[in-house]
Amino acid sequence: MDNLKTFEILKKSKKSNARVGRIYTPHGVIDTPNFVAVGTNGTIKALDSKIVEEIGLQLMFCNTYHLLLQPTARIIKKAGGIHKFINRNMPIITDSGGFQVFSLAYGSVASELKSNGSKKADGAVLKITADGVIFRSYIDGNRVFLTPETSVQAQKDIGADIIIPFDELPPYHMKEEALKKSLERTHIWEKRSLDYHLKNRQNQKMYAVIHGGINLDFRKQSCEFLSKLDFDGFAIGGSVGKNKQEMLEMLTFTMNHLPKEKPNHLLGIGDISSLDRCIPLGIDTFDSSYPTKAARHGCALTKSKNILKIKKSENILKFEPIEKDCNCYTCKNYSLSYLHHLYKAKELSFYTLLSIHNLHFMVNYMKDVREKILNDEI
Amino acid sequence: MDNLKTFEILKKSKKSNARVGRIYTPHGVIDTPNFVAVGTNGTIKALDSKIVEEIGLQLMFCNTYHLLLQPTARIIKKAGGIHKFINRNMPIITDSGGFQVFSLAYGSVASELKSNGSKKADGAVLKITADGVIFRSYIDGNRVFLTPETSVQAQKDIGADIIIPFDELPPYHMKEEALKKSLERTHIWEKRSLDYHLKNRQNQKMYAVIHGGINLDFRKQSCEFLSKLDFDGFAIGGSVGKNKQEMLEMLTFTMNHLPKEKPNHLLGIGDISSLDRCIPLGIDTFDSSYPTKAARHGCALTKSKNILKIKKSENILKFEPIEKDCNCYTCKNYSLSYLHHLYKAKELSFYTLLSIHNLHFMVNYMKDVREKILNDEI
Repeated sequence: MDNLKTFEILKKSKKSNARVGRIYTPHGVIDTPNFVAVGTNGTIKALDSKIVEEIGLQLMFCNTYHLLLQPTARIIKKAGGIHKFINRNMPIITDSGGFQVFSLAYGSVASELKSNGSKKADGAVLKITADGVIFRSYIDGNRVFLTPETSVQAQKDIGADIIIPFDELPPYHMKEEALKKSLERTHIWEKRSLDYHLKNRQNQKMYAVIHGGINLDFRKQSCEFLSKLDFDGFAIGGSVGKNKQEMLEMLTFTMNHLPKEKPNHLLGIGDISSLDRCIPLGIDTFDSSYPTKAARHGCALTKSKNILKIKKSENILKFEPIEKDCNCYTCKNYSLSYLHHLYKAKELSFYTLLSIHNLHFMVNYMKDVREKILNDEI
Repeated sequence: MDNLKTFEILKKSKKSNARVGRIYTPHGVIDTPNFVAVGTNGTIKALDSKIVEEIGLQLMFCNTYHLLLQPTARIIKKAGGIHKFINRNMPIITDSGGFQVFSLAYGSVASELKSNGSKKADGAVLKITADGVIFRSYIDGNRVFLTPETSVQAQKDIGADIIIPFDELPPYHMKEEALKKSLERTHIWEKRSLDYHLKNRQNQKMYAVIHGGINLDFRKQSCEFLSKLDFDGFAIGGSVGKNKQEMLEMLTFTMNHLPKEKPNHLLGIGDISSLDRCIPLGIDTFDSSYPTKAARHGCALTKSKNILKIKKSENILKFEPIEKDCNCYTCKNYSLSYLHHLYKAKELSFYTLLSIHNLHFMVNYMKDVREKILNDEI
């Protein structure tokens, strides 16, 4: 493995802007395009790190906001970093904590943007300053001051392979003037984050976060400002629109203004239908809690792209696996009938077994996507 | 494996009545003395069958009452029996359903006896007759008539390796005259269960249930009546007393009146302190939901016999496993610090990981017990 190399493109599709590539990290390679599962608290819900490695999930997303409050970055550093703490020997990405903090600040408006997979954020933002955000911990009530420097330091203590600069998350309905100010502040914060990161390098990559909401001029400004700086890749954040159409218009535009030679990531989007539409735009990685959340609601992902609802009573008579040709642990060992029974009985093992299937599905779906790009089929 | 042989005693201790033996079943051997984990709904809580097999748990206890109502004995039979339904290739024992039904009938009094590991029993007993019990299903409100014959037929459809005759569970405070009547009825029901079982043999063993509460005369009568019948083994059921002293007096007495050449089982008792006192009496198997329930409450079993409370804040700094010399999956892969974090974050993976440790502990504890008996140390 070549740690000096950050990213290489192996193939550009003749049919679209889709590409197959490889991101190199100290904990191994990430084949792109790829799906990134969310493990907010340092665990993908209902699964443990060794199972997740076996499933072959190459990149896991952890939330700095949650880890900062518990167990704290100090403890994770003491443990030898997040990989040792959770015993994962594959790549990890952390966000800056900004998303959750501003979800608190802007309250229910933030929920218009996207679901953040956590209902825990019942803390309170005390003050937003030019330097950062002061908020109260929902764990112990302590005041926490999150700034570009403290966020990056926390992410250095946590020690993920890819980290994110501190940014502001403006709500969808923010007026143009306010959005402009927010964008300026975000750019200053991202620059400060990068400076702090470069002064304290420790074998981590930092992705900028492109902002601007659905205002294309702002997105362009953000691409131009951030791509001049020494970031290793780009994440597309902020509001991505109120529907898929708006999202695709914004992404098509934004992708044209991003450097092609660096990897990029779409924050918080990972449903199959969005993947199918965004991969041809050249997006490399996508994080989402969708597959594991769907599992906890009894929804199995299937190759037909239809959701199989485990709770449907007809499933009790299906003594075959969810999908006959699926070679996940769950499908190899258990019938749909048994899974239906476990779901009805509210057994914890159900959540584990269906999360395994759904995550395995995503890993294989993306393998298939890469194969199709290699064949110019996407 | 010799299916004709039911049980053999390999060693009798010189120090006590403890013995090491082997129970033979169509799904493999059970080394005795042994601990039997409870998987009420056909799954040990937070674990799946393959993990439980890997841990080496030789006998699993399922509850006919719960399985009868959901997914129903009909569905399990259609699936090819409980082993195929839950994908377990090791021995299973089912009870008659009587325990849960009479817990409903006698309400909170039953909770004096022992906790049955389920809070679901919010159905209602409609009628107790000479033939059995009519109750309402908590799943769909349907009337269910449980009799010696329907209970045994359900257990034949479910298809466990060891089954239990239908019995009445009198509450601890039942007066002598009523207890006497209950015992007579239980004996009639058990005889009817056995007759039905023998007429419909299908490679299952049936253990009688010795009753009589803490009345030693009644226990003696129960032993004498039931040991004359063609049962394959004996379970000790009913009230075992309001404290350990009462239980031990009753068990010491009862064990002296049971045939030594057949295996015996103590129903619903499995904490370490009880095991330590009951094994020297010659009891072979013990079922309990204690280790998995303790896990869900954050209590880890340890070799020092002290409970380690995961939630204690000092554990966040313990980057070593629960027990350094434990070779369970959890201790091999995760630190006490990480487990503490998962517990505080209420992550489902915590319940799985600690249940693995506790069940692994029990399996090893019993291996050690057998070793000690072989060396006349117990």
